Amino acid sequence: MKTKPAGPIPSGYEARDGELAIGGQTATSLVETAGRTPLFVYSKKHLDRRMADLRAALPQRIGVNYAVKANPHPAVIAHMDSLVDGFDVASSGELAKLEDAGIDASRVSFAGPGKRDDELEAAISAGATLNCESEGEGERALAIAQRLGKAPRIAIRVNPDFELKGSGMKMGGGAKPFGVDAERVPALARMLIAGGAHWRGLHIFTGSQALSADAIIEAQGNVIDLAARLADEIGEGLPKLNMGGGFGIPYFPGDEPLDLDAVGQALDERISDLPDSLHDTELCLELGRYLVGEAGVYLCRVIDRKVSHGVTYLVTDGGLHHQLAASGNFGTVVRRNYPVAIASCFEREADDVVNVVGCLCTPLDRLADAAFLPRADVGDLVAVFCAGAYGATASPQNFLGHGPAAEMLV
Amino acid sequence: MKTKPAGPIPSGYEARDGELAIGGQTATSLVETAGRTPLFVYSKKHLDRRMADLRAALPQRIGVNYAVKANPHPAVIAHMDSLVDGFDVASSGELAKLEDAGIDASRVSFAGPGKRDDELEAAISAGATLNCESEGEGERALAIAQRLGKAPRIAIRVNPDFELKGSGMKMGGGAKPFGVDAERVPALARMLIAGGAHWRGLHIFTGSQALSADAIIEAQGNVIDLAARLADEIGEGLPKLNMGGGFGIPYFPGDEPLDLDAVGQALDERISDLPDSLHDTELCLELGRYLVGEAGVYLCRVIDRKVSHGVTYLVTDGGLHHQLAASGNFGTVVRRNYPVAIASCFEREADDVVNVVGCLCTPLDRLADAAFLPRADVGDLVAVFCAGAYGATASPQNFLGHGPAAEMLV
Repeated sequence: MKTKPAGPIPSGYEARDGELAIGGQTATSLVETAGRTPLFVYSKKHLDRRMADLRAALPQRIGVNYAVKANPHPAVIAHMDSLVDGFDVASSGELAKLEDAGIDASRVSFAGPGKRDDELEAAISAGATLNCESEGEGERALAIAQRLGKAPRIAIRVNPDFELKGSGMKMGGGAKPFGVDAERVPALARMLIAGGAHWRGLHIFTGSQALSADAIIEAQGNVIDLAARLADEIGEGLPKLNMGGGFGIPYFPGDEPLDLDAVGQALDERISDLPDSLHDTELCLELGRYLVGEAGVYLCRVIDRKVSHGVTYLVTDGGLHHQLAASGNFGTVVRRNYPVAIASCFEREADDVVNVVGCLCTPLDRLADAAFLPRADVGDLVAVFCAGAYGATASPQNFLGHGPAAEMLV
Repeated sequence: MKTKPAGPIPSGYEARDGELAIGGQTATSLVETAGRTPLFVYSKKHLDRRMADLRAALPQRIGVNYAVKANPHPAVIAHMDSLVDGFDVASSGELAKLEDAGIDASRVSFAGPGKRDDELEAAISAGATLNCESEGEGERALAIAQRLGKAPRIAIRVNPDFELKGSGMKMGGGAKPFGVDAERVPALARMLIAGGAHWRGLHIFTGSQALSADAIIEAQGNVIDLAARLADEIGEGLPKLNMGGGFGIPYFPGDEPLDLDAVGQALDERISDLPDSLHDTELCLELGRYLVGEAGVYLCRVIDRKVSHGVTYLVTDGGLHHQLAASGNFGTVVRRNYPVAIASCFEREADDVVNVVGCLCTPLDRLADAAFLPRADVGDLVAVFCAGAYGATASPQNFLGHGPAAEMLV
């Protein structure tokens, strides 16, 4: 069987006693602690290092928000609390998780194209900033705020006229369900301010999962230009500008990490020469996957090793019910292999070509095709890397009744 | 905006007081009863009618099993109990749901390429039939049964050398993680029987979601031939033959319903002339989607109606977290529209072209692209049909923190 390459294993994962170690503990001991597989392990060391690298590369003026949707595990949220400046949520459910963690809602903004009235009420009551996505939503928010007797904190999410080139998911450029078309933003802002909103500025999100520094630099430049133009048209300064995110991580063969220093340097130059209308504006990035994606590893156990028509399968107790994106079934057209390893013999040389599959009774349940790995047998542990973002919660955990994976932060 | 066609609305859904009615109740009254949207409604009338049609078309000798993975909602399982001859499960979690419903495990078979030891133990203890998927699994099952002091009921799942042509998912033909390659089945059967297993026969699953009667007839013929040949080689009769399923339902524009009568007639001719080795074999089909798919409707509410660059969006409180397949992100390469309607004005003439999207903050969250529908506004209810199978449990319900949909059987 011809080998198919797997994505690059993120740096910082090393061997201990021949096994993959995360946070200094071997895969076997982590599984023992958790009591079972499948298991998501999130690494504090990786979270800390990524944030330290970001702080070192970015101008001090640029804040960093965590987009909770990437990984809302309570221990991850609690750890991020000490690292980031603010949080972005996509539902009142995520807002409630932050409140459970004791995070003040004044540090939280809420974006989402379909906010229900009860969600608007929860956010306004708590004092979170609403990123308003339409004129209709703005009117609903003002009416709810009036009923509650509170001044709602409102920013406007802008649907920009440009996109983040080469991004995995484009969130701007042309017709979109997200935000308000740029030309209608000034009128909406004036309506909200006149209606008693506590004006919080703009949110401009152009795309996600981009690995090209040039594309990010260009999009950030366009975001700043657009924000300055809109501020002038609104006739009111911007207290805050959420410049969006878009920083990608390498998942697949040939992917190169984002050149963070280049992005930081360009931002530094740019903000040294900001338009007057953004002079006092608080600037922040909103990052999810980039902060947590490489900090997570999904561990599952080999249940069977079998051969069919000359092809070897490692059947694991994991699968797409926890790792939908790795199976190639979430937003991808052509399936490619995520980085994988045999965690229980991490240092052994590869000598075997196998299909790693999940335990679900569907041909969609693939974790690695024709992967070149050390020989593994029943009982061995498989690691799928880049599992820290859009893993556990972005997968159909109830599919076929196996239930959720365990999760732990070490 | 150019209209994109939507799939055909299944028969049996009518209007009442201008609204979509399910089981004689309007969409509005169903949502009132449930207390919220989004809501999956499953129709007893549709379940009953589909089974009646099947019984009328199939030879009396052919049993019908329900593949629980299609829809494991407790009320659906309880209703199917009175309709079908047996159940197929894909995990010990699904087996537990059947036990909760008071269904005797002697009517249950368990297939799945990665059965854990604790799952084998649960199935053997309960007396369910294991569809054995490998030599290794067979050995594990015998060892566990010996420890329990029970004779395990075991059939063998065969990886056939042929496929179900035109099926949405191929489960046979070439290398597969499912079952045992046909040529190794006789030796495994003899090993299991010698090891004390209560021999239950064969399970041969060739594919799913086929709409061509000719393809199904051909595959069923091949299944019977293969089963007869294997029975001869094993030297032991087959108490039972699970012939698999594969019956599809129309989801997309141009899809035509399966010609059930043609399938039934061909089966009738075929079993009137069965090989001697299958003379006393109990024959059954295993159907999931075909039994429940068209019996389910997903109802969600319009939260916002907005325009971006001339395109109108209906933003709903539903989305891919409940309807991953309808969003085009589960096993499909080119996204097409499922059948959709404005449930709250089901009879009104279409005069509007809209994109129907979910509430999630991702461009993947699409329920219908450029659909030609009656004009809908905030508060209206949207129906997505063909939501009875692989809906609620085959979707990432925790994604973005909105939580699961409500479900009810009427």
